[in-house]
Amino acid sequence: MTLRMYDWHNGPYPARVRIALAEKDLQSHVQFVSVNLRKGEHKTEEFRAKNYSGTLPVLELDDGTLIAECTAITEYLDTLDGQPTLTGRTPREKGVIHMMSRRAELEVLDAISIYFHHATPGLGPHVEVYQNREWGLYQRDKAVRGMRYFDGVLRGQSFVAGEDFSMADIALIGGMIFAAMLEVQVPVECDALVSWYARMWERPSVQNWQAMSA
Amino acid sequence: MTLRMYDWHNGPYPARVRIALAEKDLQSHVQFVSVNLRKGEHKTEEFRAKNYSGTLPVLELDDGTLIAECTAITEYLDTLDGQPTLTGRTPREKGVIHMMSRRAELEVLDAISIYFHHATPGLGPHVEVYQNREWGLYQRDKAVRGMRYFDGVLRGQSFVAGEDFSMADIALIGGMIFAAMLEVQVPVECDALVSWYARMWERPSVQNWQAMSA
Repeated sequence: MTLRMYDWHNGPYPARVRIALAEKDLQSHVQFVSVNLRKGEHKTEEFRAKNYSGTLPVLELDDGTLIAECTAITEYLDTLDGQPTLTGRTPREKGVIHMMSRRAELEVLDAISIYFHHATPGLGPHVEVYQNREWGLYQRDKAVRGMRYFDGVLRGQSFVAGEDFSMADIALIGGMIFAAMLEVQVPVECDALVSWYARMWERPSVQNWQAMSA
Repeated sequence: MTLRMYDWHNGPYPARVRIALAEKDLQSHVQFVSVNLRKGEHKTEEFRAKNYSGTLPVLELDDGTLIAECTAITEYLDTLDGQPTLTGRTPREKGVIHMMSRRAELEVLDAISIYFHHATPGLGPHVEVYQNREWGLYQRDKAVRGMRYFDGVLRGQSFVAGEDFSMADIALIGGMIFAAMLEVQVPVECDALVSWYARMWERPSVQNWQAMSA
């Protein structure tokens, strides 16, 4: 099996799939194809034929099937061996993990991404052809509120979706990586979030995410 | 088993879970709790304790577990009997269905929702405390482009994620329901989309979605 992953070496969304690949020990099956975000290669007609939404990462299977969207790619990778460890085993686990993963996107990661693309220079004027600065700033504030929410969650449990590491942790790690890149500060009172994040960085999958495609 | 579903009789997002419930023949296990969107009951502190994001629907299990987000609820419902019919059986099916479901949200349903909340009176001034009209109009145009994209998809296959009905069809149905409510027109050239939508309305699960909680 050879998987092809269209990604970019320091993208916070690509990070999510790289972490999932390492958690599932599937790196050796993947050929990475670099799509230069700074040059806007993800917005070309050619790339949009692979992913209409014009986002990274995209996974291409042996049979040519293209899978975009981090959650979708993670579902694929996690169930390949019939032993899911990231997306849940029971219906209840699946439901809670999908909820918390989506919530980490909505309330932190996607909010930071909108801030980046709309209220900072983003990927540059040739890529950011439409910006709505007010919306971007609003989403930055939403992301900081989201950090407070997840801090509260992590005061009561060890991981984002309960007592086991999951795809929901990976989604929030993506948000924290993106926030750090943009120097969006984690509120000082968020001890539990900061402590969880430090624990996440003890995982080899997280430590090595930027080196993976090298 | 008794499930409790917090929802609203004509909400396009609640529609998605109602359709999933009917497809799985689980209606008789559900007690519906009405949360008045027009009164902003989903934005109260009390409701946000159930779902931080302040959105409907939310499913409550026997043990008190709360599951928000339509995709997460559908994962739960679809895997309860060990016979998934909406979210995929193989890794490849899971990946493609999750991708197309998310794409239907991003490119149509969520875009229409942002248009509603930001560039129309939405749920009224007591609920829509912040509006960004320019962003709302931008998202409406994105949704219309999204309809053209899905029209192209449906020229080549019978359903949104391939040759079987799935959660991805349900997400796009939600978008089409919301667009119709707001009189956002489907482009006239979108024959395949219109024809697919007519076929969707032949399904009892779709026909009866508004009557379900009565």
